[in-house]
This record gives sequence, C-alpha cells and structure tokens, in this order.
Amino acid sequence: MSDSPVIALAKDLISRQSVTPADAGCQDVMIARLEKLGFKIETMVFEDTTNFWARRGTEAPLFVFAGHTDVVPAGPAAQWHTPPFEPTVIDGYLHGRGAADMKGSLACMIVAIERFVAENPDHKGSIALLITSDEEGPFINGTTRVVDTLEARQEKIDMCIVGEPSSTHEVGDVVKNGRRGSITGDLIVKGVQGHVAYPHLADNPVHKAMPALAELSATIWDNGNDYFPPTSFQIANVAAGTGASNVIPGEFHVQFNFRFSTELTVDDIKRKVHSVLDAHGLDYDLIWTFSGHPFLTDEGTLLEAVVSAIEEVNHKRPELLTTGGTSDGRFIARTGAQVVELGPVNATIHKVNECVKMADLEKLTDMYQKVMEKALA
Amino acid sequence: MSDSPVIALAKDLISRQSVTPADAGCQDVMIARLEKLGFKIETMVFEDTTNFWARRGTEAPLFVFAGHTDVVPAGPAAQWHTPPFEPTVIDGYLHGRGAADMKGSLACMIVAIERFVAENPDHKGSIALLITSDEEGPFINGTTRVVDTLEARQEKIDMCIVGEPSSTHEVGDVVKNGRRGSITGDLIVKGVQGHVAYPHLADNPVHKAMPALAELSATIWDNGNDYFPPTSFQIANVAAGTGASNVIPGEFHVQFNFRFSTELTVDDIKRKVHSVLDAHGLDYDLIWTFSGHPFLTDEGTLLEAVVSAIEEVNHKRPELLTTGGTSDGRFIARTGAQVVELGPVNATIHKVNECVKMADLEKLTDMYQKVMEKALA
Repeated sequence: MSDSPVIALAKDLISRQSVTPADAGCQDVMIARLEKLGFKIETMVFEDTTNFWARRGTEAPLFVFAGHTDVVPAGPAAQWHTPPFEPTVIDGYLHGRGAADMKGSLACMIVAIERFVAENPDHKGSIALLITSDEEGPFINGTTRVVDTLEARQEKIDMCIVGEPSSTHEVGDVVKNGRRGSITGDLIVKGVQGHVAYPHLADNPVHKAMPALAELSATIWDNGNDYFPPTSFQIANVAAGTGASNVIPGEFHVQFNFRFSTELTVDDIKRKVHSVLDAHGLDYDLIWTFSGHPFLTDEGTLLEAVVSAIEEVNHKRPELLTTGGTSDGRFIARTGAQVVELGPVNATIHKVNECVKMADLEKLTDMYQKVMEKALA
Repeated sequence: MSDSPVIALAKDLISRQSVTPADAGCQDVMIARLEKLGFKIETMVFEDTTNFWARRGTEAPLFVFAGHTDVVPAGPAAQWHTPPFEPTVIDGYLHGRGAADMKGSLACMIVAIERFVAENPDHKGSIALLITSDEEGPFINGTTRVVDTLEARQEKIDMCIVGEPSSTHEVGDVVKNGRRGSITGDLIVKGVQGHVAYPHLADNPVHKAMPALAELSATIWDNGNDYFPPTSFQIANVAAGTGASNVIPGEFHVQFNFRFSTELTVDDIKRKVHSVLDAHGLDYDLIWTFSGHPFLTDEGTLLEAVVSAIEEVNHKRPELLTTGGTSDGRFIARTGAQVVELGPVNATIHKVNECVKMADLEKLTDMYQKVMEKALA
C-alpha cells in the first residue's frame, strides 16, 4: 500500500537533516506545493536563519499556520532503534527526528490547505504560513523577526494555529490556548574569600545568601487563575568555591527562572526579588533575561473553531491548558492575534526514538481543514 | 661580611628545590651536621616521602624539634622580585621559597642544637629531630607514619617544638599551644531532575536543602573556651545544575568544613549535622573526611620553657593561641606529648616573595637554645 499524501510528505521532510538552524530544503518542498495553490511566497533570511511567509488572499481575516522546519539534534545514535533521519514505520508509528516536533504537523498543514483550497477556492479572508528554521535554537532570527516585518508593514494576523505538539495521549486531547511568561535571573552574591581557619577575616556569600534564597523558594508568588497554574520559581544552577575544602568562596553564583502567570508582571517579579535580596542585606549583582510575557486566547472565533473541529473528529472536547515551555506562539500573540497551539502527542519529542502515530497525523489533517472551514469558509 | 651560621645554613636549604614531596638533599645537609654531634640517624622512607628521625641520648625526657624540608610551589615566577630558589638578601630580609615556612626554622634548630650540645655535652634526657618532606602535601607518609613507627616501638615523645611560622609581627609574639580540630563533609542532596516548566514533575534539591543549610550556617556550635575560639562551620563549595536555565537540577553538592574546639567531639558534630538534615526531610548522602582532633598544651615544662625563653629574648610574653590551620603538631600531640609551635612571622608564607627577617632567625636560634637549656640542661 502506498503512503497517504500526509505520510508521504512527512517522510520527505523527516529525511532532510535540518538541525537548527539548517533547513535542508524542507521549506522549498513546502513552497513548491503552496505556489501551485496560488500562495504568494516571501523568503525572509535573517543572519543564519531561513524563514518564509506565504499568503493566499489579501483580505481579512488573516488566518495563519505557524511552524518550524528545524529539529533538535538526534542525540546518541546508538540509542535509536532506527536511523534518526530515515523515516521508518513500525506498528503504525512513523519514527524519525522531527516526526512529532514538528514535521508531522507541517505535512498536515500543507495537505489540509490543499484540500481546503480545492473545496473552497474562493474562501473569505486570507490563509498564510509562517515557517522558520530557528524555533529550537536561540529564536532570535526566526518567528520574532518575521512578525516584526509584518507589523512594520501593518500586515495584521487575526488567528494563528501553531503546530507544536500540544497533545498528551491522543491528538487533540489538549490544546494550548496560552503560555506562561518566562524570565531568568543571574545572581552573583558577593562576599570576601578567605581561609576556613580564619572565618573572621572572610565573609561567606553562601551563608549570607541562603536565608534569602530559602525565602524566595518558599514564596507563594500567586495562585494562578482559571487559565494559568501558579507562578513558579526554580533555581536552575548554583556554583561557589575554589574546589579546595579550606577556602571560603568569594562569590556565589545562582541562576533562577520564573514561569509566571498573568497575575504578575515582570516588574512585580523584579521588585519582589530585589526586596527580598535587599532585606537580607546582600551585596549582589543581578542580571535579568526576559524570554516572554504570558499570553492567553480565552475566547474568539479561532478557539471556538479549534474546539468544534476537534469535537467533530474525536467526539470529545479538548482540554485547554497554558502549561509547558515557551513556544513561538508568544511572538505572534504579542501582536494581538488569537493564538492556539494544536499538534500531535508530545511524549517522545526531543528524545531518542521520536515518533508519531500515523493515524493521528490523518486526524490532525482533518482538524486543521475543519478549523479553516469554520474560520474562513 | 660573611653570613652567620644560621643564615648560611638557611641559604643552603632554600637553594634546594624541595617542592613537596621532594627533599632535594636538604635532609642530607641536616643529617651531616647532626652526625657530628653524636645523633643516631634513621632515615624512614614511606612511599614517595623521605623522613628522618635523629636522636641524641637514650634517656627520658625526650625533647623533639619537628619540621619539614618540603615547600609549596613557587607560583607565578614573574611575580617574584627575586628567583624563588636563589636565596637573596634585601634590606635585612632573606627572600626565597621556604624562607619562613620553614627552612629558616630548620637552620635555627640545627645551629641551636650545635650550640646547646657544645655547652651541654652531657645534657639530661634526649634530643631528637623529626623531619619530613610531606608537610605541605597530603600528610600521609610523613610525620604521622614516623610517629606510628615510634609508638610501635614505645619510643615516647615528651616535649615537641614544631618550627611552623607561628608569629604575627615579630618572632615570638605568638606561639601556638594547640590547634582546632578539622573535619570536612561532602553532602549530596538528592532531588528529581526536570524541566522548569513542569515543576510538579521534578523536585528541586537546592530548594529543599537551603533551609537546612541556612540553619547549619546560623548555628552557634559552641562559644569556644579559654584556649579555643568558637567552633566554625563554613561551606567551601556548592554546585548544582546542568548549565541550562530551563532544567531543575537532580542533585545538589555541598562541601563544608568544621574547625572545632575541645568543647565538641567529632561525634557531637556528626550527630548535630545529621539531625538538622533529617529534620528537614532531606534525601542525602554525606561522606565525612576527618583531618584531626583539636589538641592543647595548656601547662607543663615545655610551655613554661618556651614562654620563659621568649621573655628573655624579647623582654615580653608571647600570646598563646590555638587559631589557624592544621599542622603536623596534631600527629605528635595525639601521643600525649606536650606540643608547642614556635617559628618566624607567617605574613609571607605560601605567597610570592616569601621572606624572613634575618634578625628574627638569630633570635629564634637563641629561643630554641634557651628552651633546650630550660627543658634539659
């Protein structure tokens, strides 16, 4: 039996070794299909990153599929049961790096669009794809710069489906209708180095910092809300000391990260952290790296269309969550667009033996097509 | 003007590059001098370390000078104003690696013994030297093994002067009549690694450990006593994290060191640390490395002789302290011997441009000779 259109395209994409920021020809394959449907293509190269923006139609509303052709490295090849860049079917699952994150989704998008356009050649509004090869990397030259370009020319996205693997057990059981914000703090607490035998001549920064860090880690930052879990503070890295057991360290390095709900602003977080550190009388440097505001799409045409499309395919409603890591959805949401993430099961992403259930890709194609019908037909 | 006997010998010793565990012929120089005085020499080689035990007389009391011929590395040669292994006199100071720690002291011991024996050829008791080339290193094959050998044959040290640089501003202003104990703990607090975006699936060992470590670092272990400063707990090294800002670490490594007074035993310390860690519900491994019990010589013939000798030379009493790092004195004290450390000013030891005031070496020679006279004449 020959492969279905969506499986055939997924295999083609998986066979291309597009480890971030490489694209390895994936975008050309997608572009060739979209050009046949009358999409206008713009390739946008920023530094080492290739992105494209493809649009069919000029009217509002503008409905967008967003995704990425890059994948994370395969990791230890010996632990893979199949070669990571040779798409292989085992017991109804398609194996290979990117199968679930997110070349499977890209294939579903293309095939769903082909079917939708064939049935609705004169759909209202516009359909577009925003595809990057930088999602798994530093996300500097990918989606964020394409969005900047669109905003600069006042091209306004109304609705966006991000194809990230949102699902937990079967495709469509979970959609992400928002994400928490993320901000990282790099803290250096300063003391005075010295010999442990002469503690009165030194000032141990680890001792000084611990009560403050204990207070920060015990703090209840908020209780979340209907859409967001509570804000979370986590210490990710700590380091102090020369390695010798008889030297009191001079500095204590601590890196912590917040995943925060819409109950707090970045300024709230910074103010509270500084007030705790100051209250404990610490001498410190603190550098903040901001990764993204929380965003939420809690109503509107897109969310209704997604929930309804999933119900028609799965015969049950999806769960709406805002948990999990950051995604490129945050760059699109900041323009005011409705943004929902819908993609396959994420159990194997970024792991060896990444795979996706082939039947789920067929269902996801149906879901994507039905969302377009509800939003644009 | 030619060098005095003590300066000439100190220069000879400094010119030999005896970085631990090398001896570079220093002990042969000393042995040749002692043989002429009728000392019986035993060279004791343990693994990579050469030691010698030289004794004159067979009766009690047995009075010992203890010291080491090895030195710490010179460090960055460019920062030395003079070549570290070329003894050089500048403004009355003898410069070179080991000048203060402790080749200067060794020269004083030899010359003081020569003078004492010349004046008291039939002194009572016995005089001995216990010299190692392993004091600055792992102290495994040095003094401790010589002491083991002496104990095995029931050769009992009654009094011991350790030539470590005990002085602060001028020779003899401080003698060390004891040292604190030292014990190190290597703690691994266990958690569950995970993604910072899913804190409910992880268990951050840094967060869990901080209240316990804050409690340990705030604990008043004891208030010391007439001879010892309070016991000190210091965290020397901490490490946790993968380096990534989005990963909750799975383990938290903490190394801490106690310098403890005679108010506490090793068991007291271990029991208290475990009780704090257990009270905080931590899952942990803790490996203890014991370095030495505290010791104290608070009275007796030796201490009286040292104080009196210093008063005669300096016209003021020395301060008796138990502060500072560990020394080989702890191995000798555990046999029940009276142990006092008396040596030159320690301001430049283990640093570049190590030096000793030449007049202080002459005074130290006088002090050593007077101590022998008071203890044995």
